[in-house]
Amino acid sequence: MRPFNATDHLLMARALRLAERAAWTTRPNPMVGCVIAHGDEVVGEGWHQRAGGPHAEVFALRQAGERARGATAYVTLEPCAHYGRTPPCALALIEAGVTRVVAAMGDPFPDVDGGGFALLRQAGIEVAVGLMGDKARELNRGFLSRIERGRPFVRIKLAGSLDGRTAMANGQSKWITGEAARADVQQWRARAGAILTGAATVLADDPLLTARPASGEFLPPLRVVLDAQLRTLQCARVREGGATTLYLHDPALTAPVLERAEFAASPLLADGRFDLQAVMALLGERGINEVHVEAGPTLCGALLKAGLADEMLLYVAPLLMGDSAKPLLAGLGIETMAQAVRLEVIDARMLGKDLRLRFRPE
Amino acid sequence: MRPFNATDHLLMARALRLAERAAWTTRPNPMVGCVIAHGDEVVGEGWHQRAGGPHAEVFALRQAGERARGATAYVTLEPCAHYGRTPPCALALIEAGVTRVVAAMGDPFPDVDGGGFALLRQAGIEVAVGLMGDKARELNRGFLSRIERGRPFVRIKLAGSLDGRTAMANGQSKWITGEAARADVQQWRARAGAILTGAATVLADDPLLTARPASGEFLPPLRVVLDAQLRTLQCARVREGGATTLYLHDPALTAPVLERAEFAASPLLADGRFDLQAVMALLGERGINEVHVEAGPTLCGALLKAGLADEMLLYVAPLLMGDSAKPLLAGLGIETMAQAVRLEVIDARMLGKDLRLRFRPE
Repeated sequence: MRPFNATDHLLMARALRLAERAAWTTRPNPMVGCVIAHGDEVVGEGWHQRAGGPHAEVFALRQAGERARGATAYVTLEPCAHYGRTPPCALALIEAGVTRVVAAMGDPFPDVDGGGFALLRQAGIEVAVGLMGDKARELNRGFLSRIERGRPFVRIKLAGSLDGRTAMANGQSKWITGEAARADVQQWRARAGAILTGAATVLADDPLLTARPASGEFLPPLRVVLDAQLRTLQCARVREGGATTLYLHDPALTAPVLERAEFAASPLLADGRFDLQAVMALLGERGINEVHVEAGPTLCGALLKAGLADEMLLYVAPLLMGDSAKPLLAGLGIETMAQAVRLEVIDARMLGKDLRLRFRPE
Repeated sequence: MRPFNATDHLLMARALRLAERAAWTTRPNPMVGCVIAHGDEVVGEGWHQRAGGPHAEVFALRQAGERARGATAYVTLEPCAHYGRTPPCALALIEAGVTRVVAAMGDPFPDVDGGGFALLRQAGIEVAVGLMGDKARELNRGFLSRIERGRPFVRIKLAGSLDGRTAMANGQSKWITGEAARADVQQWRARAGAILTGAATVLADDPLLTARPASGEFLPPLRVVLDAQLRTLQCARVREGGATTLYLHDPALTAPVLERAEFAASPLLADGRFDLQAVMALLGERGINEVHVEAGPTLCGALLKAGLADEMLLYVAPLLMGDSAKPLLAGLGIETMAQAVRLEVIDARMLGKDLRLRFRPE
């Protein structure tokens, strides 16, 4: 018996699209969508919009009302089983008289982790798990990384020329990419829990590092500056614009008190650089699901070398900058083809005159 | 009045597709396609298959027979007006009783250059020129470059990593790209009149440099080695495989006699390097429409700097090779963003796990 039919696929796809609407607003919670239907007739739908607000199932059940009785509920993540800021959704589904629940995946969050499915099954509801599970995992790659690996999903944004250069030898880099690419970056920033950079970039570019999408609600991402010796504090722009700024520094230093800034000590390695694993663990503990990195070739290269680059987002401008220009990534220490970092291009598209590539470790 | 209707567009598109079938076999002649139709009913079609063989119009007229009378002929290039290796096609169209000729573009070849259209009009045939002219020019970019600029269209093939590197510092470069990309290169080689490389590449890689497409007839491209001091002659592979090899050398040298090899003197600049404009003029005189360059970063960079790179064909492998690896192009001498070479990506696609980009100067 094939557990899922075409209608199941269609409605789960719909639930996944609904879930993604909250990509900029649910964090640190996962994105979740819910569709309630009789056959292919949808009677209710909803998505989890904000942490602390109602879950997806609650919105969908409210819309369905009495028509939830005897219906199938499609959920992109296991319904919760615990009393958190809201009562358990599994109970709500039982009370509403839903007779079948199709879930894309279980919720590894310790307070749920199978408990939701167990409650449903105890109430005699048919539960089927795993429909479009890959897409559901992909949707919540940030949340899942934090829960399962104890660190955020790390995306490194890079912009360069066709010959793989990111700035002139003199540091000049404005503007390599065009408007469409720069607007696209803002969308990626908006979905990140944190935007991370290094001291060198703050000193060189004095960036604002806020998310500024053209439209749409979003939670301002935390700005994180890796500044071991706190030598960038005179660059004030990174503390402007309404988002919080977190400086990570050498534990040997005492953090100053500065308006709109937070400070946290993070361990350094013997070479005086940050232990990047510890940096990411710290951000995971702060509830950051996705870190969006916009930094120079040295920090980006170090993240990659540390195995922390889960995805690279590369904007390629139709330019040749020449071989004296600066590299995209530095310090990889690759000497032979066998040492080359093998990746997979998961998406390639044009944005205006630029090319956008997303790739991940193979 | 709009001169061309939807049927005209459809049938010219068909003629263009027919023309392209001979991309590997017509040189040094242009590719030409012809469709003869009454309204949207096609009564004859053909394409110019080989230099010295019948022209596209002849094939189409043979197929149409008596039905050519009163028909429209769609041709991708002006019908010839001269007695070359075959009698003038303009006369054949007149004799067959065609009443309208739609041409994508005129033929700038000096023996034609408007003469075909004049003959047709003198015979009372309605002539309309310019339908899908851009596509027709693109089709014969090699032929047109040779006739109009006195030099071939130059395409530079490059293969590199996502970080813009083409070989390790130790020279290692096998294999950066995958099978699909390498098979694709063979298609581009097959349509070239010449495959050009430099002495450094011959010494380093001892390449065969023949076209080896998986299937299909083609004329073996001329292999051209820029070898001023003739220091690569011990590398014999480039003379194997059934294609002619042409060595260009310093005029101060006397060419040796060597089996399966031709030699030609080509002027050097003060720095001892070839005058690349003169190289291309020489190849143009030999009837080469398209030059496919597979060379190292220095020669490729020099062609670009000399304004001779009409198109770049870049295969990007999903690899990071690091900043100590060799650049795609060397010696561009770019110091500021204003000096960056601005290009346009005209095509981007995946080939297996690799990305293929085609770009041209803006």
